[in-house]
Amino acid sequence: MAPSFSLDDWAGPRRAQVDAWMRSRLAGAAPAAFADALLWPVAAGGKRYRPLLCFAAAEAVGAGPDAPLVLAAAGAVELVHTYSLVHDDLPCMDDDDERRGLPTVHKKWSDGVAVLVGDALLTEAFGALAECGPADRALPLVARLAQASGHRGMVGGQAWDIGLGGPITDGEGLVRLHRGKTGALIEAAVWMGAAAGGANPGQLDAAARAGAALGVAFQIADDVLDADEDAGDSGPPSYVKLYGVAGARARAEALLAEATDALAALPRADALRALARYTLSRSV
Amino acid sequence: MAPSFSLDDWAGPRRAQVDAWMRSRLAGAAPAAFADALLWPVAAGGKRYRPLLCFAAAEAVGAGPDAPLVLAAAGAVELVHTYSLVHDDLPCMDDDDERRGLPTVHKKWSDGVAVLVGDALLTEAFGALAECGPADRALPLVARLAQASGHRGMVGGQAWDIGLGGPITDGEGLVRLHRGKTGALIEAAVWMGAAAGGANPGQLDAAARAGAALGVAFQIADDVLDADEDAGDSGPPSYVKLYGVAGARARAEALLAEATDALAALPRADALRALARYTLSRSV
Repeated sequence: MAPSFSLDDWAGPRRAQVDAWMRSRLAGAAPAAFADALLWPVAAGGKRYRPLLCFAAAEAVGAGPDAPLVLAAAGAVELVHTYSLVHDDLPCMDDDDERRGLPTVHKKWSDGVAVLVGDALLTEAFGALAECGPADRALPLVARLAQASGHRGMVGGQAWDIGLGGPITDGEGLVRLHRGKTGALIEAAVWMGAAAGGANPGQLDAAARAGAALGVAFQIADDVLDADEDAGDSGPPSYVKLYGVAGARARAEALLAEATDALAALPRADALRALARYTLSRSV
Repeated sequence: MAPSFSLDDWAGPRRAQVDAWMRSRLAGAAPAAFADALLWPVAAGGKRYRPLLCFAAAEAVGAGPDAPLVLAAAGAVELVHTYSLVHDDLPCMDDDDERRGLPTVHKKWSDGVAVLVGDALLTEAFGALAECGPADRALPLVARLAQASGHRGMVGGQAWDIGLGGPITDGEGLVRLHRGKTGALIEAAVWMGAAAGGANPGQLDAAARAGAALGVAFQIADDVLDADEDAGDSGPPSYVKLYGVAGARARAEALLAEATDALAALPRADALRALARYTLSRSV
């Protein structure tokens, strides 16, 4: 990594780009109140971690953020993430009144509106990708995003999380939950960025390995940041409860090493390496 | 149309085919209770009107129901229709306890499970299409399905329907609501079937015109079947309230003629013509 690389400098314009892209994809919805509700969770902001991974993976194989399919992939991943938050916040799910200091969609409008907003954001993710080309590069991105988001990925993880599979008592169950709930989309973001950027099969494989490691590391880091080993049996299951703070931290470091190792196969992975380190230090 | 054509004989095996396809796409979900919940609204059955339109449009341009992309298009349209029913039935939307004589997903499991089931069915619709090829034929189907289902189509119509745009008082508002809420997906089903079947541009245009006419005719027919001109200002707005039973019926007949006229451009449109007539006589 070049010593002068600044993740903040790199990320700023890319965040602005994906924000503008999402707004443009949702512009002109009707009725007007629905357009407002659609834009609300997008305008609430966020670190745009998943689109940044996507841009970084494309860059790692030589494609810039202006390539239409790279931008669409980054935006589609964030639309899926945003829809999942809107549905998650519903009273019948996590029941959150605020997100990023603002009322959630269902608090500001209604539960029904929040259901529809989530449905529309999810649908638009696929629609936007499908309006890009070339077809033989865009279609696998649709397939991968669906796989990561649906019952085999994120929604499947949510089903475990709301207890449909009974209590989670071991590491295997916890990994399965989080691989679905958060890991699958993070892994897909890296894969999709590389694929949109024109990665060859070897590069795509490296991106997939790095993404898979980061997906799990992300959740462990979250648990470490929220660490409370004394919480006992109360609260949700976590890596810290299972392995302790030191054990969880060691596992996250090992995954970071695994990701960094995989990235050695990619020619321009500065940003992706910086994001991998950032994965362990933040809470997004 | 051949005098011997029987819509029932034609439809039966195609319904069985799309049912089996949907089950196979949802098989193996985890946890097991989630797999049960996912299959529940699919197994509840239905007339499969939209997949039949899709098969019929493919057949009209010479493609059978076994062509993988034709089958995926038919199944994807029904997955989207099914998800919309699951979310519609939620207490925060139409609040229906039963559908086709069975408890709705949220009554049998919970509101949270119904949100997730709908999300997963919608996602799988796009995923299944994207796992088909050839890419340059499959990708436009993804785009069209998203356009018909999202904020520019079905979900947009729902937003009008739950009152986000204020009360609907004229024919223009009613057409806008129903073009989104039910028409867009019906229109897309016909278009997608023809496109999946390899229609040339002229045939695709004819299919689009027939589909658009059927989409509106479908809702008018529904309103006529539910006709209650004496309901006054109570109840939802309807074509019958605006135009009277005779006026609404005449409008539906004119749309059927428009669809039939468009279908003259397609070589093997027997099934599509029979479905067009069926559109006016049934309640699906």
